[in-house]
Order: sequence, then structure tokens, then C-alpha cells
Amino acid sequence: MVAITNNPHRAVVEHRVRQAVYQRLGKPLPRAAMAPNPLVVNISARHCHLTQEAVEALFGKGHTLTPFKWLYQDGQFAAKETVTLIGPRSRVISNLRILGPTRSINQVELAYTDAIALGFDIPLRLSGDIQGTAGGMLMGPEGFFEMREGVIRAMRHVHMNPADAEFYGVKAGGHVQLRIGGPCGCVLDRLPARIDPAFKLEVHIDTDEGNACNLQPDTPCELLT
Amino acid sequence: MVAITNNPHRAVVEHRVRQAVYQRLGKPLPRAAMAPNPLVVNISARHCHLTQEAVEALFGKGHTLTPFKWLYQDGQFAAKETVTLIGPRSRVISNLRILGPTRSINQVELAYTDAIALGFDIPLRLSGDIQGTAGGMLMGPEGFFEMREGVIRAMRHVHMNPADAEFYGVKAGGHVQLRIGGPCGCVLDRLPARIDPAFKLEVHIDTDEGNACNLQPDTPCELLT
Repeated sequence: MVAITNNPHRAVVEHRVRQAVYQRLGKPLPRAAMAPNPLVVNISARHCHLTQEAVEALFGKGHTLTPFKWLYQDGQFAAKETVTLIGPRSRVISNLRILGPTRSINQVELAYTDAIALGFDIPLRLSGDIQGTAGGMLMGPEGFFEMREGVIRAMRHVHMNPADAEFYGVKAGGHVQLRIGGPCGCVLDRLPARIDPAFKLEVHIDTDEGNACNLQPDTPCELLT
Repeated sequence: MVAITNNPHRAVVEHRVRQAVYQRLGKPLPRAAMAPNPLVVNISARHCHLTQEAVEALFGKGHTLTPFKWLYQDGQFAAKETVTLIGPRSRVISNLRILGPTRSINQVELAYTDAIALGFDIPLRLSGDIQGTAGGMLMGPEGFFEMREGVIRAMRHVHMNPADAEFYGVKAGGHVQLRIGGPCGCVLDRLPARIDPAFKLEVHIDTDEGNACNLQPDTPCELLT
């Protein structure tokens, strides 16, 4: 693996500054600053998760994914490698980014805008829940890989560690809402909470959701429970 | 003009049925059925409004737009004619639908997803408020037309007649919220109310907003004030 260092997310810096400023002023912390962790909201552009078998079919025997950019969740990365997705009407999406590390299933996550352009009719699913979904053909520089299923619109969700879940009062299987501010802001309903001690607090929405409310790095966001 | 008849919108049929059923049962009407008019929520895909001068530059001297499909607002139509929009990076959007009748200004309305794909940086504006916005080049079968300005993301909004405005308690210059139901529902903030006796009650959102919440003809929608 190559060494890549990411700058901290703006929300992380703001959270630390907010806590420090209120502490120095001797004032009580507002609720956002009392949260154990900063709230990071990231837009997932269309991408795929692949098995090692699929990676080798597409990029050659023994090929392993090369990290291109580390993601906010520890150990997760956008790979240097991309594939071409061929849809049912022979329309294609080129440069579909692979996210690593490899997984036990193959899954393509598209926004509805992408799916309409490609001619897919895709269901809204929690990541990993791909049974009975449409498949597709992937093309890489060394070959093709046919996915029997796994093309979905991933449901927006929030990653939390148990301390976050306690602060926001949500249990495994529960949901939160996300308020996104700004001139075309909105409140997104029903974000399932994925709780794990290894998770950092992060909301994942897709490009349709991000563009609907024009989410920018400085757009104020708040979890509602 | 050719004769085109549209089927009534599902929301219109449902509103009439709801009113009739409650009346027949002799039960008090729920709030949605008490509204003077059905709430129609429509997604505006990317499109443009043109002056007669632009139409003639693109389609030839003396050319007038041909209605292809009538829209919900009386007299408004999607034209048979489409143009090609050429963006700043020489990327294009083909088949950009023209909405008629012709207007006094030229305006292209894109979703942010479209703008990002094309390489435009477009502002969020109320329709008609185009001063200082980016321009673009349009191409038609008979020529080009350069827009000096007018490429925007149109702010979502609601058309109302005065009786609707009174029912929802909103004045000219005011805003409403729109709740969209379903498994990936949301509440959209700040829809400016455009009030005119000629208007039928209708919300316009763009494809990013429609796809973010997967708006379908049977998705329950509600105006909040």
C-alpha cells in the first residue's frame, strides 16, 4: 500500500475548535459541541465493491486493489482501479470507482439519476442486502465479470460507534433523520443507524441527495432523533 | 397547434375520489380533502425557455414552437423541438427540451447533477432571476444561439391560486415546506409560493430532488406551512 495522508474533514476541525472556544470562554457547550464526535456527512458517488475473484477477472490473476484515497472510515479506500459498467440497453458508465478492501459480495451502488440514464430499474436497499436485485456486466482492462445481482441504490445511512448511538438515543435497527441547512436545505427521513465500535460518526448520502440540497463542506448538518 | 389531451394527474383523481367518498359516508373531510385543490407535485427535468428570436436563430426564420405535450399549468407545453446545450468544457447535453410558449428571456434550467457533468458552476435562482448568471451556447438544426446569461438551477417552488394560498396560510413572498413520503422520503425546506389567479396548485422540483426521494405518481405528498 502507498502512503496517503488526507487532511482532516472540515466538520472534524470545526468540532474541535467549537469545543475549545466554549471551554476557554467558560460557557456551557451547545448540544452540537457536547456530542462525543463531529458529524461528518459525505456524498458517495456511484461506486462498486468487489470480491477478490472479480478483481482478478477484471484486472488479471493475482491483482490486488491499490489505494488511491483513504475514506473517513478507517481502512476503507477509493481504489486507483475503475471499471466500466454495461447496462441493459448497452449504455455504459465508464470510470466506475472501486472501493476497497475487497468484500465477500459484488455490489454496484448507483444514484437513481445514474440508473435512469443507464436503463436500470434498481431497488432501494441497505448495503449488503442484494438478494433478488438486478445484475450487470463489468468490464476491466483484462476481462469481463458478470454480476448476477447486486446493482442497487444504497439507502442513506449513518455509521455510529456506541457512544454516538447513546448520545443520539438510537439503538441498532433504529433510524435517525438528517437536517441539511442552506438555501435549498431539507430533512432526510429514515437513515438506518449502523452501530459498531470501529465506526466513526459519518452519514452517507448519494449524489442525488447531495445535489438536491447542494451539500457543500460548510453546509450545516444536524442529526435529529 | 395540434390537439393533445392529457389524462388527469393521479393526484387530481385521488382528490376528487376522496372528497366524494367522505361526502357519501357523511364523515367529516380530513384536511387533505378539505383543500380547495389537489396537490400535484411534478418533476421538471432539465429544459429551457426561449425567446422567439432564439427559436428563429435555432430553427429558422418564422419558425414557431410545436406543442408536444401540455403541462399541468394551462397553456404551458413541452415543445416538439429540442436543442443541444454546449457547456464550457465542450461537453454537451443533447435533446434539451424547450418549454413553450416563448418568453421574454432565455433561460436554461439544469439540475446540479447535469451542471457537474457539463462543467457548469450554476447558481440557485428563482426562475426569471438570471442577472449575472453564466451563459452557454445552444445549437439547433438551423443555427446557433449564444446565451450571455441564464443557466441556472431553478429553485423549487409552488404555484398557487389565491384560494390555495389562503388555505395554506401563505402570502406572496412567503414559503412552504413539502413533505414527500415513502421509504426515502424527506421534507424540502423553503419553497417560494408563486401566487396568481391563473395558477393551478402545483409544486415543481427538479430531477435531483425527485430522485433523492424517489418521487413516484403514488408517493404521498403534503404541503407544510
